[in-house]
Amino acid sequence: MKIDYSLYLCTDRNLTADIEKAVELAINGGVTVVQLREKNCTSREFFEVGKSLKKITDSKNIPLIVNDRLDIAQAIDAAGVHVGQTDLPCKVARKIWGAEKIIGVSVSTVEEAVQAEIDGANYLGVGAMFATNTKTDAKLVTLDTLKKIRAAVKIPIVAIGGINLETISKIKPAKIDGVAVVSAIIAAENPEIAAKNLLKVWRN
Amino acid sequence: MKIDYSLYLCTDRNLTADIEKAVELAINGGVTVVQLREKNCTSREFFEVGKSLKKITDSKNIPLIVNDRLDIAQAIDAAGVHVGQTDLPCKVARKIWGAEKIIGVSVSTVEEAVQAEIDGANYLGVGAMFATNTKTDAKLVTLDTLKKIRAAVKIPIVAIGGINLETISKIKPAKIDGVAVVSAIIAAENPEIAAKNLLKVWRN
Repeated sequence: MKIDYSLYLCTDRNLTADIEKAVELAINGGVTVVQLREKNCTSREFFEVGKSLKKITDSKNIPLIVNDRLDIAQAIDAAGVHVGQTDLPCKVARKIWGAEKIIGVSVSTVEEAVQAEIDGANYLGVGAMFATNTKTDAKLVTLDTLKKIRAAVKIPIVAIGGINLETISKIKPAKIDGVAVVSAIIAAENPEIAAKNLLKVWRN
Repeated sequence: MKIDYSLYLCTDRNLTADIEKAVELAINGGVTVVQLREKNCTSREFFEVGKSLKKITDSKNIPLIVNDRLDIAQAIDAAGVHVGQTDLPCKVARKIWGAEKIIGVSVSTVEEAVQAEIDGANYLGVGAMFATNTKTDAKLVTLDTLKKIRAAVKIPIVAIGGINLETISKIKPAKIDGVAVVSAIIAAENPEIAAKNLLKVWRN
């Protein structure tokens, strides 16, 4: 499956009253891939939100990736799963899910990036690039490290963490494949316009 | 897979300093099946604890069942997964995991029990039978309801919730297949003796 990683949206239900609506608008604005991220909810709730978002992403022909929970990803037949360094190892996820599905891995060092590529990751999420309120425990990654990771692996790279209209242009020199955003779209007054503006700055 | 449900141990790492040791002693004392139950830990940690317990249960030829997380169950090649009413639906878990693996379902009413059997559950966990500190939000199930559930389904039934040396005999008239315990074994000074005593009372 060929994915356009240009504008990668991570959901956060704490930032909006209507996550389905926000995701739909964001896709209308140009979001190219959606990651469902849920913490502190039951598995049933995660599954139900996932099913409902999957209908939206399917109707727009946009891939849906599930954060952390491979079982939820399987249950809703998502396009992929995204695992961090404290989630299931990429190799284990790959063995369970087979060769066809997308597996993304969060990394913050060159070593982790190289290992993830060896372990069969399809793409990397690198960050946090900037301080962010949606993940306060995230280690910061310098632009220099991002460039080194770009040089060290062949798979697509998405930068994440505090990316918005102001910070997005600082990432561009690293020549990566896309930017992941949470609050800059989800918490925006109009997620469609927010996505459109981010994509314009990213692609120009 | 034929499982002896007589004495079903649920783990709780909050109740013991060394869960591996406690499980090993409990099996020596006669525990017939072990469920790994983890809350509030990362997926990686859940996976690591699971792998380590799996080595112990494999060496003793005792089935290991994972609570809630089907992906962790798959990752450690557990014998089964146990889902509650707020976890993945039994039907969905069955579709992902195939016909061979064990799927247990927590129920507290006759309706839920019948539905779980229809959905392909291999066994039921019924409770909470008595008030318990390890699951304070659990609804209480009367002995009468337990008997009605026994009459309504054919699959094995394990009673759970506040079961210990004092309460275990109250369950016996329901003629179910086993009792599940957490603290009565895990928090016991000697889990081996605790398991031995519980099994003796249950089987006599």
